[in-house]
Amino acid sequence: MIKLYYSPGSCSLASHIALEEAGADYTAERLDFAANQQQSPEYKAINPKARVPAMVTDRGVLTETPAILVFIAQSYPKADLAPLADPFAFAQMQAFNSYLCSTVHVAHAHKGRGTRWADDPAAIAEMKRKVPESVGACFDLIERQFNGPWAMGGSFTVSDPYLFTLSGWMEGDGLDLARYPKLMDHRRRMLERPAVRKVMAEVSA
Amino acid sequence: MIKLYYSPGSCSLASHIALEEAGADYTAERLDFAANQQQSPEYKAINPKARVPAMVTDRGVLTETPAILVFIAQSYPKADLAPLADPFAFAQMQAFNSYLCSTVHVAHAHKGRGTRWADDPAAIAEMKRKVPESVGACFDLIERQFNGPWAMGGSFTVSDPYLFTLSGWMEGDGLDLARYPKLMDHRRRMLERPAVRKVMAEVSA
Repeated sequence: MIKLYYSPGSCSLASHIALEEAGADYTAERLDFAANQQQSPEYKAINPKARVPAMVTDRGVLTETPAILVFIAQSYPKADLAPLADPFAFAQMQAFNSYLCSTVHVAHAHKGRGTRWADDPAAIAEMKRKVPESVGACFDLIERQFNGPWAMGGSFTVSDPYLFTLSGWMEGDGLDLARYPKLMDHRRRMLERPAVRKVMAEVSA
Repeated sequence: MIKLYYSPGSCSLASHIALEEAGADYTAERLDFAANQQQSPEYKAINPKARVPAMVTDRGVLTETPAILVFIAQSYPKADLAPLADPFAFAQMQAFNSYLCSTVHVAHAHKGRGTRWADDPAAIAEMKRKVPESVGACFDLIERQFNGPWAMGGSFTVSDPYLFTLSGWMEGDGLDLARYPKLMDHRRRMLERPAVRKVMAEVSA
């Protein structure tokens, strides 16, 4: 039995949706970031990085969205959430997830998590100011390369909930959504999926 | 035939060593970052992100270190560079690579690549100032969790050249290496490997 630790508005949404799309038997436990629950000794015993997502499995705890997403795809092969039999297509999916994780999410994090990389309030404000530009450049690239209907092309994969999660931050990051018609269409189609609706209802409850 | 684009001192070293460890038939082409060659139209046609590594394969171009490393491991299974038959162990390896990519490398990048996230010189200087603290916290966690002899425990995997690549930046990032005996021992053992010696000689030539 899988247990996912999540926080509303965070990147844990991607793993949450992937579990639901996989038809997994799982529970989801919310952490209250406003109360700094991710820093509690109890949670840090589960994930010393004090972040979400963390996924408890029968074999132990997994962290890091790209790793969790592939683990879900491999654990529920019938759901067909990744091109597991084609190493090149799999690597393309992994490259997309890695870009979301290390470039797009990181650029976004300079809006609200600047204290990771600076202490001076003026520097933190300056990082925040540049977010529309840096995050915008990332999504410009994704929009330009997007062939659809899904992130990896014809087949729905775990990259779709991940893209959906990060594209949900675009408006708050000050981007002009009209510049991203393909990504907005992707959001619309994601929101039509029962698994996405179910998880969105749960995390916003 | 595989062609790897690399730059000395960059994270492309991980993929380079992995190709050598795999016994792959490949060529490696150096990009001159001092001459901004990664921004040339020719290279941006290969990798629009204008970064290294990029790996040209018979099927197309791959980017992003965690994706390339797993592709190498899957393409050369006899080299046994990843726990491909065990989804949980594979996910642990992927989580480690993802942490290196999205947290450790990103913290380090605030030393020399601050313009990605700020324009004001004072903010860029402030980011640089915090690098020993932020990168240090990452390697404190890795050192504490390191069971050895290799990054993933008893077996050498593609996580080892990746860790070796990033731990090679620790001294330049202002860390006190004496605080990291396990990681320094890992570096010593990596430097004894013929594949590592060969690639190190090539990139520093």
